[in-house]
Parts: sequence; structure tokens; C-alpha cells
Amino acid sequence: MTKEQISIYFQILQDHICEALERADGNAKFHEDNWQREGGGGGRSRVIQGGSVIEKGGVMYSAVWGDLHEKMLASMGLIEKVDFFATGVSIVIHPQSPLVPIIHMNVRYFEMSNGTFWFGGGIDLTPHYVAEEDAIWFHQSLKNACDKHDKTYYEKFKTWADDYFFNTHRNETRGIGGIFFDYQKTDETRNKQQLFDFVKEIAESFLPIYTHFMKKNRHLPFTEKEKTFQLLRRGRYVEFNLVHDRGTKFGLETNGRTESILMSMPPVANWVYDYHAVEGSEEEKTLGLLKKGINWV
Amino acid sequence: MTKEQISIYFQILQDHICEALERADGNAKFHEDNWQREGGGGGRSRVIQGGSVIEKGGVMYSAVWGDLHEKMLASMGLIEKVDFFATGVSIVIHPQSPLVPIIHMNVRYFEMSNGTFWFGGGIDLTPHYVAEEDAIWFHQSLKNACDKHDKTYYEKFKTWADDYFFNTHRNETRGIGGIFFDYQKTDETRNKQQLFDFVKEIAESFLPIYTHFMKKNRHLPFTEKEKTFQLLRRGRYVEFNLVHDRGTKFGLETNGRTESILMSMPPVANWVYDYHAVEGSEEEKTLGLLKKGINWV
Repeated sequence: MTKEQISIYFQILQDHICEALERADGNAKFHEDNWQREGGGGGRSRVIQGGSVIEKGGVMYSAVWGDLHEKMLASMGLIEKVDFFATGVSIVIHPQSPLVPIIHMNVRYFEMSNGTFWFGGGIDLTPHYVAEEDAIWFHQSLKNACDKHDKTYYEKFKTWADDYFFNTHRNETRGIGGIFFDYQKTDETRNKQQLFDFVKEIAESFLPIYTHFMKKNRHLPFTEKEKTFQLLRRGRYVEFNLVHDRGTKFGLETNGRTESILMSMPPVANWVYDYHAVEGSEEEKTLGLLKKGINWV
Repeated sequence: MTKEQISIYFQILQDHICEALERADGNAKFHEDNWQREGGGGGRSRVIQGGSVIEKGGVMYSAVWGDLHEKMLASMGLIEKVDFFATGVSIVIHPQSPLVPIIHMNVRYFEMSNGTFWFGGGIDLTPHYVAEEDAIWFHQSLKNACDKHDKTYYEKFKTWADDYFFNTHRNETRGIGGIFFDYQKTDETRNKQQLFDFVKEIAESFLPIYTHFMKKNRHLPFTEKEKTFQLLRRGRYVEFNLVHDRGTKFGLETNGRTESILMSMPPVANWVYDYHAVEGSEEEKTLGLLKKGINWV
């Protein structure tokens, strides 16, 4: 399949996800911005704010092309100029309730005029409070999706997510991880269609997973203390995205559309100097689970 | 003078500033943490939270030494290992009121076992709402301080601040700038004492400047809209510090004490997708003044 076909699939995916999220939220609607990129291509940014479940969320689609930025050429050890084409969908949802998790999903396709192409993507969950049964269910859902395509994927991509979504300066993971993969190219075991099918599987597992969490706890009452902890966890989310996330850094450095890149920022975030959870509290339990290498399934 | 003398001066400076800020705030007190650095040295972090004027602020002193980090060796083009000694005071204050400005001040001294040494520092102001008379007064105060030492300093260091405190991804300055300088070494026009005297001048101009602003507007009533705008401006402050600020990035990359480095984070910050100020509003006027090259004096 061609880059145009992949790109159209992502566009339809965006439509489908936005509709379903609006329905699940029941209140707010996405606001759409179309933008063009100097140098080639553009995107369709959709943001929802002030919903009954979703406080702020973005579902972004883009397809951009042109000369590969020199930073990227250098990072790939390329000397000659090449053209690139990149398309994908990127989602971050910040819920109102501290008892509903933050989610991130991204699927992307990249190709260069020298013939190289690859897929990337992932889903990871950041519960403000980690509930073990939810973490197990989430990881099992991802494992089921992966297993349909390759029995080695889940473990490999789960480890990748643990390593990627990690706030090194805090020595803690962003949330409970999930899966993350990049540079997935064809080889003797898989052709382009198989790779694309896997990416579609992940993309399409987003809705059942997140609407499950949207429904589950949306009506549960929560305390002031839980709300405060949510805002602190969001502060860590900001730290990860601005300090470590490669997509964010690269986008900002190469004159990407700032508002689309920073849709991942929470509506409100807090910082308290030298926060420590009370011994034996739910907050302490959560912080203890923000580490790499937990086998949830 | 020796590195120990400079370091002791900074320690006394921290004491002096903390006392005066507590007095000016009239309510909250600094909380002190002493920390040690693996590899040599340590610091005295002082943070104040929930004051009547200051919502969150830090006045940090440190003196650290040891092997120069390989990242720093590389950035200076050094091949052989050297020892370093670095000491300084760093301040960020986030006030409660949107009508009182955020301030940042830093003075620092760095020396290496190969005999090289330099001073750096600066003060910059981030009013949530830019009032022209305040901006003029602030820059005039800095110019007066600079002029006592070298008539070329103000212009040079003001331009440096404009360039440094700049959110490239927003194409806007963090605030109204101030002065910023780094790598100030001795030469035919100035010896070490003269450089240190200048740094002391800047350090000591912090209190009269900021207590002036603490007093000026602390009792002025403000609206919900002004509070919201303050939180958005704080979001930009977070972006600058996490994406661009070299000190923050370097500190986080080299295993600095995270809580001391990130004391600069505001207590609460907001993000709204694609914010635009209402035409003709005070917010629009402020955004129009967040650019380089404004001659305030």
C-alpha cells in the first residue's frame, strides 16, 4: 500500500475516534483546526475541552512532506539530502476525574525518497492512582492485540515503553507504561501489509481501551486530596513531555505547529516543592508502582 | 579573592535575601533543605510556599566540585579531565497576585583546575501583565547598577537577556527581559575583584527591585480573568524552563538535585489550546510587548 493509502487510513481513524470520544463524553465537542506546513503538507488538529469526562484532549492527524530537516539527516547519519513523507495520528486525553487515567496513543508512518520506510506507535496509560486490576486489564488488552501479529511483540514493545516513558530526572515512569515501538521495517518475517495491519490493530484498540476507562470511574466521587494528587501527577506529565519526549522536542526544534505539539499539556498542573506521600497512603502505593519492569500480565 | 570567599559571600547573600523576603511577605517562612552532592559539595535549598505575597519561591545556594562532567568537557572542547568548582545563588519567585511580577535572579562563579574561571548571572522580570512604567523602572534600575561598573554592560547584557529568555517555539520572550551574562573573565579592562564587585552589585540590586514590586501591587484587587491569564503565563514559564533553559537542562541531565532545580516551577500552571487574547484587551497589549529589542530606558 502507498503512503497516500496509509495517510487516508489515519484520517478516517481520526474521524472515527473523535466521534466515539464525543459520544462517550456526552457533552463536549471537538474543535477542528486545519493547518498547512511551509515546505509541504499539513494537518487537522482536533481538540476537546471542558467535557463531562474529558477535561482536555487532542486527536491530531497530520501528513507532512518535503526536504528532510538537517537535524534529522544528521541523526540518521545521512549526508545527501532526501525528501521525506510522514503521517500519523497522535492522541492525549486528560480527564476531569483523578480516578480516570490519562492516555496517550500514537501511530505513525515515515518514508524517505531513498526507499526506506518504517512504522512506529504505541499506547501508554498514566493513571493518577494505579489500580492493579486496571493495569492488568490494560496490559492484557495490549498483549492480546500484539499476540495476534507476533508473539514476541508484547514483551519487546512493553520493555521499550518502560524505557521510553521514563522521567530519568525523577527516576520514575510516567505511568504504567504500555507498548512503544519505532523504526519497524520489513524483514524476512513481515512485509509492509503485515506491519500496517499490526499498526491498525494498535490504533483500533485505543477506543475499546479508553472508553472502558471513561465509563468505569466517571461517576465515582473523589476527594480534594485526590484532585491535588492528580494535578501533581500532571506536573510530572508536563516534565516528561517537555524534557524527554523526542517527538515534542523534535517538533519544537524544527518549527512544527506549536499548538498541535503542545496539545499534550494538561489544562492545569501543579508543583509542590519536595512532595512526599504519606506513609501507607494510596499516593505512596502509586508512586511505588511507577517503575520499570513490572510484569502486569 | 578565593573560591571559598566567593562561596561564603553567596551563602550570606542567601541568608540576607531570605530574611528580607520573609519580612516583606509578612506571613510565610522559608523551609530549608541541606543536601550533599555525590562527587563533591552540596547546597542549601530554601523554599517558601503559601505566603501572603509569595505563592511559591526558592532561594537556592550551592557550592559543588569534583570531576567535570563529560558533557561539559565536550561542550568546552576539552579533552583532558579537569576538576571544577561552581558556586552560586539562584532565585525564582511566583507571587500570588497576577499584578505582581515573577522574578528570577542568578549569580554564579565557575572555576576549573586548569586555571580558567568566570562569573555569570542576571536578573529578569516576568510580569503577568506588562505595565510600561514598571518595565522602565526595572530596566533603569538595572542600567544604574551596570553603569557603576562599565557603561557598555547594560546594553550588552540586556540584549543577551532578550536572546536568552526567549521561547523560540512561541516566538515570544519569557517576560520583559533584564540582564543576562555568562563567561565573564578577566581581561585588560577588569580584574577578578572588579568582576566580583559587579556580580555583587547585581546580586544586591535584587532585593530593592523585588520588594518594590512586592509592595506596589500586593493589595490591588484582581479579577478571575487576570488570575486565569496569570496561570497561562506561568505555563509559558514552565515551557521556557523545561525546553530552553540551559541551566535546567544541564542540571537534569547531569543528575543535579531535581527538587532544587525544579523549584522554578510555578505552584499551578494552565494550558488552553490555541489561546488568543481579545482584541484591544490588556492581555493583547502584554503579548505585544513580549518581544526582543524594546528599549525601555
